[in-house]
Amino acid sequence: MDIKFVKRDVLKEKPDQKNLGFGKYMTDYMFVMDWDQGIGWHDARIEPYGPIEINPSCVTLHYAQETFEGLKAYRTKDGRILLFRPEMNAKRMITSNERLCMPGFPEDMFVEAIEELVKVEKDWIPSEPETSLYIRPFVFATEASLGVHQAISYKFMVICCPVGAYYPEGINPVKILVEDELVRAVQGGTGFTKCGGNYAASILGQVRAEAKGCTQVLWLDGVNRKYVEEVGTMNIMFKINGEIYTAPIEGTVLPGVTRDSIIHILKDWGYKVNETHLSVDDLMKAGHDGTLEESFGTGTAAVISPVGEFVYKDDSVVVNDFKIGELTQRLYDYLTGIQWGNEEDKYGWTREVL
Amino acid sequence: MDIKFVKRDVLKEKPDQKNLGFGKYMTDYMFVMDWDQGIGWHDARIEPYGPIEINPSCVTLHYAQETFEGLKAYRTKDGRILLFRPEMNAKRMITSNERLCMPGFPEDMFVEAIEELVKVEKDWIPSEPETSLYIRPFVFATEASLGVHQAISYKFMVICCPVGAYYPEGINPVKILVEDELVRAVQGGTGFTKCGGNYAASILGQVRAEAKGCTQVLWLDGVNRKYVEEVGTMNIMFKINGEIYTAPIEGTVLPGVTRDSIIHILKDWGYKVNETHLSVDDLMKAGHDGTLEESFGTGTAAVISPVGEFVYKDDSVVVNDFKIGELTQRLYDYLTGIQWGNEEDKYGWTREVL
Repeated sequence: MDIKFVKRDVLKEKPDQKNLGFGKYMTDYMFVMDWDQGIGWHDARIEPYGPIEINPSCVTLHYAQETFEGLKAYRTKDGRILLFRPEMNAKRMITSNERLCMPGFPEDMFVEAIEELVKVEKDWIPSEPETSLYIRPFVFATEASLGVHQAISYKFMVICCPVGAYYPEGINPVKILVEDELVRAVQGGTGFTKCGGNYAASILGQVRAEAKGCTQVLWLDGVNRKYVEEVGTMNIMFKINGEIYTAPIEGTVLPGVTRDSIIHILKDWGYKVNETHLSVDDLMKAGHDGTLEESFGTGTAAVISPVGEFVYKDDSVVVNDFKIGELTQRLYDYLTGIQWGNEEDKYGWTREVL
Repeated sequence: MDIKFVKRDVLKEKPDQKNLGFGKYMTDYMFVMDWDQGIGWHDARIEPYGPIEINPSCVTLHYAQETFEGLKAYRTKDGRILLFRPEMNAKRMITSNERLCMPGFPEDMFVEAIEELVKVEKDWIPSEPETSLYIRPFVFATEASLGVHQAISYKFMVICCPVGAYYPEGINPVKILVEDELVRAVQGGTGFTKCGGNYAASILGQVRAEAKGCTQVLWLDGVNRKYVEEVGTMNIMFKINGEIYTAPIEGTVLPGVTRDSIIHILKDWGYKVNETHLSVDDLMKAGHDGTLEESFGTGTAAVISPVGEFVYKDDSVVVNDFKIGELTQRLYDYLTGIQWGNEEDKYGWTREVL
């Protein structure tokens, strides 16, 4: 791919690596590429990060024809730069775009765009423990037209920001509210995609959970309001009686890259992983009878997020005395070890940016 | 409300009223107002229509925190300007914004913004038969921040464009595909709102319907995949054995302004209106045994859109010999008569812009 480089005159000052937060500091550059009907993808460029002009009748502002991805670049102790399974993000965005009637692309194009931007921004990849460069590829319709239709022009952009540890005070369990009124996804809908609409629809659940003193919301399936699906914007796993349970990928749950990686590792470690429908009643029962040993969310941002308590209607169960479980900790250490290059990458998941 | 007016130097040339299409010509001006946490709505202004600047990390581009409305200004034969039930759009947008965790506003503010813009753009309201000025109010998050959260800044904008007859060759019945795999909405989701995500998710159904030689898609409910809900982006009604059937407003179906108006009129005309769950099996059965007398979609753009045929799996039924039904035609004539000021407005639905 031929990528034009537009240099900026003055680079921004890099922020203090000990106070990066999440998404507070965007880097100097962004990758931009256009798609037009009859032409396809064209004009790949890396240019100074800055505002874009949008027509008020742009399809994205009205009908949300937009998808995104999220991944990270990690700096190893010896200064190398690693990406973690970027081809999985490429595949998923292709799937998302198909569902939203948006243009696809070769996986290579997606990965190359990211690699080239990361190369330009390599000085932005922090080296403090648990920090990384968060990378946000996104595609959105740019056509100005008010009819509801498949747009005829799009932009693919990649932006990035250095991020600190997701839990600056260390990884601590969170309290989760089981949402029994609002629904995140239903089969036949867009739950398996990373489209904007899924996230806008989820905010109210998060707001309600916080109002009840919880950190995140646990979503149940939209048909039976019974089976656990995701937690907040993460996949969720349970260790019950020594076995692992997580919702299957059947159209409602996001096929998480971290989810897939954790399942691989768990199977290699000899765990039985049940990708199956677990009812909230069985979950609460397991919590009460002591067989619910551990639970954790999985996602790119936090990697692993242990659950300390589930609140469902008037009932609640505490998991592992509200302490991070042994397996949860081991998974976190091992997977982040691979990501930051401290563990042997026996799965070939990391990809060095040279 | 104090509205600042920013004049443009040169007005655009008005398009030929006989070839307006839909959304092809935006007018000279737009209404813009900002909302910030801790301040509320501020800086109302009418300014030249033109592109807006958006940060690449703007919440709307990633998480689709965005809602919209649609209504029309009509020019009467004696030159007056009428709006049709704009307070209904205001109420619905307030409901949409609540679901999406976006700021509300007083109904008056919404209506005043529209009236003031329409006054400025009064020369854009066409006078040819069946033409009108389409008005698009919309609200979207403007905050630049990549975390999934309730944004802290928004824009409320109103843009408009003159539109021609929705069916330039006269109102003709359309062929509809019953979609049995994709789902538009489920209870607990956002189906009752006009949020962008609903529309992005619906495009694939429309594309598939067209690939099968149909004009629109008929959506079934997301839980049972059985009960008819909406057609394309319209509400849908059926006349079976002399009675009217339409899906109830229970969280999945958009509470359409045209739907509500038609129900009022039908009841006044002595029809029994059943706001109930009609199964697609009962619909096809009524089509086959001849009791399905008429069917039509209702919405702001087309007002009334007669259905000539339903295709469901390997089955299909033709409605009223693929001709517009007598009641459908009468409803269309009467309601558009009120909207363009040719019928007495006994319901007090129109609002003159003075």
